[in-house]
Amino acid sequence: MKDTKIYLTDNDIPKQWYNLAADLPSPMHPPLGPDGKPVTPDMLAPVFPMNLIEQEVSRERWIDIPPEILSVLYRWRPAPLRRARYLEQYLKTPARIYYKDESVSPAGSHKTNTAIAQAWYNKQFGIKRLITETGAGQWGSALSFACCLLGLECKVFMVRVSFDQKPMRKTMMKVWGGQCVASPSMDTEVGRKILAQDPTTPGSLGIAISEAIEETVKDKTGKTRYSLGSVLNHVILHQTIIGLEAKKQLKIAGEKQPDVVIGCAGGGSNFAGLAFPFVNDKIHGAKMTVIPVESSSCPKMTRGVFQYDFGDVAGMTPLLAMTTLGHQFVPAPIHAGGLRYHGMSPLVSQAIVEGLLEPRSCDQVKAYEAALLWAKTEGFICAPETSHAIAVAIDEALKAREEGKAKVILFNFSGHGLMDLVGYEKFLSGELQAYELPESELCASVDKIKGLPAAARNKSGKW
Amino acid sequence: MKDTKIYLTDNDIPKQWYNLAADLPSPMHPPLGPDGKPVTPDMLAPVFPMNLIEQEVSRERWIDIPPEILSVLYRWRPAPLRRARYLEQYLKTPARIYYKDESVSPAGSHKTNTAIAQAWYNKQFGIKRLITETGAGQWGSALSFACCLLGLECKVFMVRVSFDQKPMRKTMMKVWGGQCVASPSMDTEVGRKILAQDPTTPGSLGIAISEAIEETVKDKTGKTRYSLGSVLNHVILHQTIIGLEAKKQLKIAGEKQPDVVIGCAGGGSNFAGLAFPFVNDKIHGAKMTVIPVESSSCPKMTRGVFQYDFGDVAGMTPLLAMTTLGHQFVPAPIHAGGLRYHGMSPLVSQAIVEGLLEPRSCDQVKAYEAALLWAKTEGFICAPETSHAIAVAIDEALKAREEGKAKVILFNFSGHGLMDLVGYEKFLSGELQAYELPESELCASVDKIKGLPAAARNKSGKW
Repeated sequence: MKDTKIYLTDNDIPKQWYNLAADLPSPMHPPLGPDGKPVTPDMLAPVFPMNLIEQEVSRERWIDIPPEILSVLYRWRPAPLRRARYLEQYLKTPARIYYKDESVSPAGSHKTNTAIAQAWYNKQFGIKRLITETGAGQWGSALSFACCLLGLECKVFMVRVSFDQKPMRKTMMKVWGGQCVASPSMDTEVGRKILAQDPTTPGSLGIAISEAIEETVKDKTGKTRYSLGSVLNHVILHQTIIGLEAKKQLKIAGEKQPDVVIGCAGGGSNFAGLAFPFVNDKIHGAKMTVIPVESSSCPKMTRGVFQYDFGDVAGMTPLLAMTTLGHQFVPAPIHAGGLRYHGMSPLVSQAIVEGLLEPRSCDQVKAYEAALLWAKTEGFICAPETSHAIAVAIDEALKAREEGKAKVILFNFSGHGLMDLVGYEKFLSGELQAYELPESELCASVDKIKGLPAAARNKSGKW
Repeated sequence: MKDTKIYLTDNDIPKQWYNLAADLPSPMHPPLGPDGKPVTPDMLAPVFPMNLIEQEVSRERWIDIPPEILSVLYRWRPAPLRRARYLEQYLKTPARIYYKDESVSPAGSHKTNTAIAQAWYNKQFGIKRLITETGAGQWGSALSFACCLLGLECKVFMVRVSFDQKPMRKTMMKVWGGQCVASPSMDTEVGRKILAQDPTTPGSLGIAISEAIEETVKDKTGKTRYSLGSVLNHVILHQTIIGLEAKKQLKIAGEKQPDVVIGCAGGGSNFAGLAFPFVNDKIHGAKMTVIPVESSSCPKMTRGVFQYDFGDVAGMTPLLAMTTLGHQFVPAPIHAGGLRYHGMSPLVSQAIVEGLLEPRSCDQVKAYEAALLWAKTEGFICAPETSHAIAVAIDEALKAREEGKAKVILFNFSGHGLMDLVGYEKFLSGELQAYELPESELCASVDKIKGLPAAARNKSGKW
């Protein structure tokens, strides 16, 4: 089948990022410090460079992408928009399914978009070294890649269980000059303390974040900063290049607008990167269903609360207004590591509160079944996170068939699964079960954050 | 840097394959049977379907690509031509370096081009099941993928040492419904015999071929055939879509023709797929340097002999006229598994004899150094085989700098290295050494095939 790919020329690459904060009906809730008062930029300065802090708090609608960043992105951007004609045919759906292919980046996912931008802004600010954490490994790979191209040092704390299960992720980072250590490690006080208590701990993203921040703030040269791969406003800003490209490509394909926009959502950045430029249209009157998809093992959007909570387990970050399961929530060990975060990006959370989004959850068995159907029709092997978006795209395509409507469905193919075949192996061997978070566990985790500040409801008071 | 990618539309996909056999100055040497006489098509019939046997012996210049095959290939073809501007800048070369990106296929390499074609022709012939062998895993993955899309069963005998070292390759095949077993296996007489002698043998490509052919010819239903991923004429024919696309893309880029064409060469198919449409121009007067690159651990083109030899260790295949190290040659365990074959495709061998090609060899340390430079400039992680082509492209770009010539260099980026990071890990850990095949070993291996038929020299008698 023909006409499966819509490419843009290098000239068509977006020259500005889009900031949804400028268009949200209600103002964003500011991050709060330990004293319950809004944090000031200088309080974040030991962790992030000032130019990114300025982006974090910006309410400007459009922010210029420095040409030097574009010059790095041209390696793989503009990324293709593809039409899933083979899946459409298999499903016998009148829907036209498009997907933005972010798997084509050298590190294999959308994460590289913000990794390059963050590395560049840090470098501009005089930073020589970035420290971060990674769960499944996508973000650590992306930041190692970005630091390599921009001439920065990079250190990645990788959650021990993933580090052991996917040794090739470490090698991938090493190819780009990144240093990857299993977390907890002996390199930090936090790590040493936890290892002393439990030398065989599998680690967690919360611990890895704590280690990365500790090592960052301890470096008194002023040349080291921390880098986060999702959740924050500036990260989401950098990802909007995805949706801005997709808009141009849909136009080339002859589509006025999508009827349904879908992205999987762990911290929220790949979803928001694709969706927010379309949410802008929705705010201005376009009819559109916009769906962030979470794992049913970590259902912060569909079953969590909207209030202030910490971004990490230890409570070292500022308080953020978000849909959350509580920062001490321990998700079941599903293989979509990128979806195991307890909270949702404040920007995405606020858009949910405003009624702009319709979150859904999907269990891992349904997700892997969708991934296999994808591999057998479209041919490509997707990341375990991406499969959650595919599952919902299939649901929507079948619904369109029932309704007899030729809907336009657009989703974000956030990454390939070639480094994550361990999960496929377990699924194919029958080792994975569907998992729904029990209500009791959810309540117990949410109870622990009841003392933290409430966040205002939206205008209609619906949340 | 802009203008790094040259795409074709689906309409621009080549509609015919190019057969170099029609244009070679001397006629090809026919394959010989055990009696020393040319094999007839019906002798090959238990192993290959008749429609592919016809292609194997065809001397037609252009062979139509069935639209049904194109319809499958559209998933990733036409493949991008990219310009390596970042590497050019790093090398400070006036050369313009282009590469055809075959890594974008779902199975990650050029192998999918012939896998799809072979699966389709087999299906047309009423075949239900294909059997093959794989070394590093690229070919087994590609054939599993192709059989999945075309609704055939697939069984892959994978050399034990690779099977154990890269367990995710097996999972990849499983995702597409392919069955992958370690070779030697208990499924064949050959396998059982070898395992009885040595239960811990690492296996070899020669053993795996023997197992695959045994299981094929034993199936008396007539619904099973064998499939080979390189070497043969029809395989190379299917790969010429690469070079035919590249020609159109170079034209779009404003280049009249390449000055240098490069591909790594194990059995010869990715090299020939890119190079043969350009070799056609060379035969008709174009000035061009065309370089197949082999591993210095398996130097059949630069140090082997041109004569009749078997394609497998056990001597079960017809005799083919090729440059060879002898079919019992055991190459050193370098990590570019795809370059460890003892012989070179008869078509490529004949083109060497005719003086159309200038083979070179490259050792694995130089190749991995090139791969790392590539990852640090262009960003992408290449297959260990591909790195040999990159190493020579770098040599040529530096030569162009010395000469002050703005040469056009074109090479085939045959595959990505994401499933082959084990080799990178060993290189980065300092475990790999440069390796040159000792003359004594070479002579000992070549001596063993002295009794096999000679192949005629080319017209000038130069070989």
